[in-house]
Amino acid sequence: MATIININADQQTASNTLDDLHLYFADDLSQVEATLAGHLSSAASLIPEVSDHIIGAGGKRLRPLLTLSAARISGYQGTHHITMAAAVEFMHTATLLHDDVVDDSDLRRGKPTARKIWGNPTSVLVGDFLLGQAFRMMVGAGNLAALDILSNAAAVIAEGEVMQLAAMRNANISEDNYLRIIEAKTAALFAAAAEVGGILAGASTTEVEALKSYGKNLGIAFQLIDDALDYGSVNSVLGKNTGDDFREGKVTLPVVLAYRRGDQTDRAFWERAMATQNSESPDFEATFAADFELAVQYLQETGALKDTVARAAHFGERAKDALALFPPSDIRALLIQLSEFCIARAY
Amino acid sequence: MATIININADQQTASNTLDDLHLYFADDLSQVEATLAGHLSSAASLIPEVSDHIIGAGGKRLRPLLTLSAARISGYQGTHHITMAAAVEFMHTATLLHDDVVDDSDLRRGKPTARKIWGNPTSVLVGDFLLGQAFRMMVGAGNLAALDILSNAAAVIAEGEVMQLAAMRNANISEDNYLRIIEAKTAALFAAAAEVGGILAGASTTEVEALKSYGKNLGIAFQLIDDALDYGSVNSVLGKNTGDDFREGKVTLPVVLAYRRGDQTDRAFWERAMATQNSESPDFEATFAADFELAVQYLQETGALKDTVARAAHFGERAKDALALFPPSDIRALLIQLSEFCIARAY
Repeated sequence: MATIININADQQTASNTLDDLHLYFADDLSQVEATLAGHLSSAASLIPEVSDHIIGAGGKRLRPLLTLSAARISGYQGTHHITMAAAVEFMHTATLLHDDVVDDSDLRRGKPTARKIWGNPTSVLVGDFLLGQAFRMMVGAGNLAALDILSNAAAVIAEGEVMQLAAMRNANISEDNYLRIIEAKTAALFAAAAEVGGILAGASTTEVEALKSYGKNLGIAFQLIDDALDYGSVNSVLGKNTGDDFREGKVTLPVVLAYRRGDQTDRAFWERAMATQNSESPDFEATFAADFELAVQYLQETGALKDTVARAAHFGERAKDALALFPPSDIRALLIQLSEFCIARAY
Repeated sequence: MATIININADQQTASNTLDDLHLYFADDLSQVEATLAGHLSSAASLIPEVSDHIIGAGGKRLRPLLTLSAARISGYQGTHHITMAAAVEFMHTATLLHDDVVDDSDLRRGKPTARKIWGNPTSVLVGDFLLGQAFRMMVGAGNLAALDILSNAAAVIAEGEVMQLAAMRNANISEDNYLRIIEAKTAALFAAAAEVGGILAGASTTEVEALKSYGKNLGIAFQLIDDALDYGSVNSVLGKNTGDDFREGKVTLPVVLAYRRGDQTDRAFWERAMATQNSESPDFEATFAADFELAVQYLQETGALKDTVARAAHFGERAKDALALFPPSDIRALLIQLSEFCIARAY
């Protein structure tokens, strides 16, 4: 855990890591952006409008960066990594649009969701369009092995989401079960994004496995830190985007741990809180604030938040070690820093 | 129109046509069914349950039949047409699941929709799973040209649905515009289903074009007859599944024609009926019955229903002529009969 404490001490380093990666891949990324924009035009004018709301909002482009990095670290010299990176971002965007419908979310990172502005039907259909467009682009790149990986990921992501839906509001699910869910719904796309980079480059089976493993473990770490951040991170600094999971009764690892570790009172609280959050009820906001404060208190008392980050750090370490067989290079160093950045976000 | 009047006189022939096709492809179809069932198993048990509700309900399997027929008429001897036919049915099922969410539909062919039973989130995610699974299967068949056609269709279908959403409740859209919408949302998958059959068989460009044209025109005809049937067909026999489009304020060709041809009173009626249908309001059912009766009356008076069927017949004829370059065969005869069946449903 030495690395983490180190980064914790120097928050500046953490945020610079992503900037470094963006800077290193600036040329590739600007081609990815152009490819994204170029594939949004449509006879249906709503499509670019809605897509631009969510894609143009400028995410971190983590998944495309994985494809670009994996291709480059494997010595790829062609141009298909741009197309694949853009397709991966479209796949990701499609799941965001559908997730917001599934979760009834009004806000994403402090901005109104597409479904809040344009309604559920539009979000469902624009998501479908982006998924179709992603496949069309991948087919254009003409690599069947890469297509196999990403079409597989598309089905697995949906499976993970269905599993999460079935486990919704059930604070009693096991940690293993929860990890299985996020491995499918989040880590599968991280893994596929990295794996196809290696596939495009014709990397060896061992190298492709290493890239896939890096992506998968990074994805799990990333999701677990997201889970922790929803409760204000280890230092309990509550930002404007905290409390979304709690509000939606979404059981995440902090809740799983706090529930298991808690006494009768804690458990009764979590069962009620996960089961009854209903943002439509008139007295919701008043009770929500009090409940959320209590939730954070229980999470602190049981060490659930701290240990969610420790679990994430474990997967972050595995991601780094997966890369150990690649010879030292700028890209390898950046990918190792990226893993550290994912954990450092928690502080 | 001689053929149609002929079939009209003998309804038995019409329904036997589809039976003939099912009988002719009995072996292939049972392999398609086995492939569908085999690709529904999942760690998320909701997936087979929900999918089976809609796939197991036993649709006509029109789209898979197009792939099977197109492959066979082009002399295909392999087995990938089974996989592709099953994938096409999964794509179709995914759009049905999403359409019911988009349209807020409670009933499909007299049965409760999946979204009515399991809710919108489940329908969205199971649809996503089926789409991912469809691509995974197509990739398995390993034919990039076929993948290109079907991934293209996936994006075009979603575009068509978005265009329809934008035109929703607007009785004033043009016939050309409406045809463009159904060409995308319905006929694109019919066209792609037939086209990939020819592609798999390595048919000539001219033959592939012919199959695609057959599928596209059949798809348009099929959708227009569906539109007419929602108002009880030419003979105005109102079945238990009539009135769904009207209830949802969905503008279809009968409405487009009746609105254009109608006088001020008619137009005011259509504008109100399309704009205000709200099945949630308490007095909805009472006013709905009266409104629907009036709608059918206007459609009859203006000849809108009869002429929707005439338009459909035009596309049905084009579908048949598209096949003229194939030498006479059992399959060609069955496909020609299929086109006639699609129109004959209207009577």
